[in-house]
Amino acid sequence: MAEDYSLYYWPLPFRGHFIRYVLAHAGTRWDEPPIEALAALKNAPVSEQPLPFMAPPLLHDRGADIWVAQMPAILAYLGEKHALYPCDPAKDALTNTLIGNAGDVLEEITCNCGRTMWSQEAWDAFVDVRLPRWMAIFEEIGRRHGLTDDAGTMLGTPQSTLADLAVAALWATMTECLPAIEPLLKTHAPAIAALSNRVAAMPAISAMRAEWRAQHGEAYCGGQIEASIRHVLAGS
Amino acid sequence: MAEDYSLYYWPLPFRGHFIRYVLAHAGTRWDEPPIEALAALKNAPVSEQPLPFMAPPLLHDRGADIWVAQMPAILAYLGEKHALYPCDPAKDALTNTLIGNAGDVLEEITCNCGRTMWSQEAWDAFVDVRLPRWMAIFEEIGRRHGLTDDAGTMLGTPQSTLADLAVAALWATMTECLPAIEPLLKTHAPAIAALSNRVAAMPAISAMRAEWRAQHGEAYCGGQIEASIRHVLAGS
Repeated sequence: MAEDYSLYYWPLPFRGHFIRYVLAHAGTRWDEPPIEALAALKNAPVSEQPLPFMAPPLLHDRGADIWVAQMPAILAYLGEKHALYPCDPAKDALTNTLIGNAGDVLEEITCNCGRTMWSQEAWDAFVDVRLPRWMAIFEEIGRRHGLTDDAGTMLGTPQSTLADLAVAALWATMTECLPAIEPLLKTHAPAIAALSNRVAAMPAISAMRAEWRAQHGEAYCGGQIEASIRHVLAGS
Repeated sequence: MAEDYSLYYWPLPFRGHFIRYVLAHAGTRWDEPPIEALAALKNAPVSEQPLPFMAPPLLHDRGADIWVAQMPAILAYLGEKHALYPCDPAKDALTNTLIGNAGDVLEEITCNCGRTMWSQEAWDAFVDVRLPRWMAIFEEIGRRHGLTDDAGTMLGTPQSTLADLAVAALWATMTECLPAIEPLLKTHAPAIAALSNRVAAMPAISAMRAEWRAQHGEAYCGGQIEASIRHVLAGS
């Protein structure tokens, strides 16, 4: 049986797991072409790219033959196609805001994907101020949408939403790959930590995660910047 | 008469003009609270923020009392509300991809909003390879959507789309504030340069730009990183 999608991304969680969480939850079948195929596409002249793009992730909807680049655009496409948006202007906007926030957290924790490396001093300041602030932003948004009183209106509703999936893809992935961060999340965003773990434990996503780790191990964002994060985490 | 929106952003074009282009084109009335009001909101405890957020832009839809943060989420909200999406899954996805691309270009030209400063060597490499590649990505996408043969199917259609507005807000703003970059754009993305100038010259947007420049001058992204860009541009 043909796959529904092809996802071109590095063999890493990071931005990729946002898309994998959604693809798994939506019950789709997808493949991930080998890194050589991704590199060939990425380095091709723009005129030869199926969709001109700079960097992965890149998604191919094989049935519709639609290509999408940019993680938030891919999530929006999948969210529409698989009916994962709340379909309310305020909640849809908040979903996209949360996805944007998640992207910012990924940028911050990797010093913009390795533009600089972490010093112990900079990391200590980050986990003292900005990372807890980000966690509190997610937590407060969750609380205002009923996450803590079992009356979720957008996050933590019985039918998982795109926002739930993005929140979990951010925080469950980060704390799974970098467990030293989990206590900080549980302190500053206990309801978000619980939601993220619930979403990550749903059968389809749990199965995807187990298969992923069996194949790829515990890498998070890869490269020198991951080594830098692990180095400062060990020194904290 | 009350304003339709309040936009909280620095008194700079950069990400702000993406939103201003859309607000102006949609014929809305908006105010931009003074920087002190923005700073007070930004620095407030998350529990006291109307929408917990880390950094501007932040938009308040005053009629609906909806708050949205993150530039792409704000554009998506306004695009839905003011019917600026093509309303076709592939084209809507491509619109969001282009907005994501635009955000990446803003990050790259500012070394991630000033995380590092430009050296002449790094800048020369940027304008030799990656910036032309970004321009070519936009151009090739435009060409595939009829931009160069007056049969535009998504970009350059008679009714300007969210994609047109975002493309112009990126390239017309950059070349207006940093005119030394214009020849590069005209070389690598002539159709995108022409589209951007056409959109920027539409009456509502032209009036917004004129008022903006009268009040705020020629700043682009502000801060030390703008000084760094102007320094290396002068040395190129």
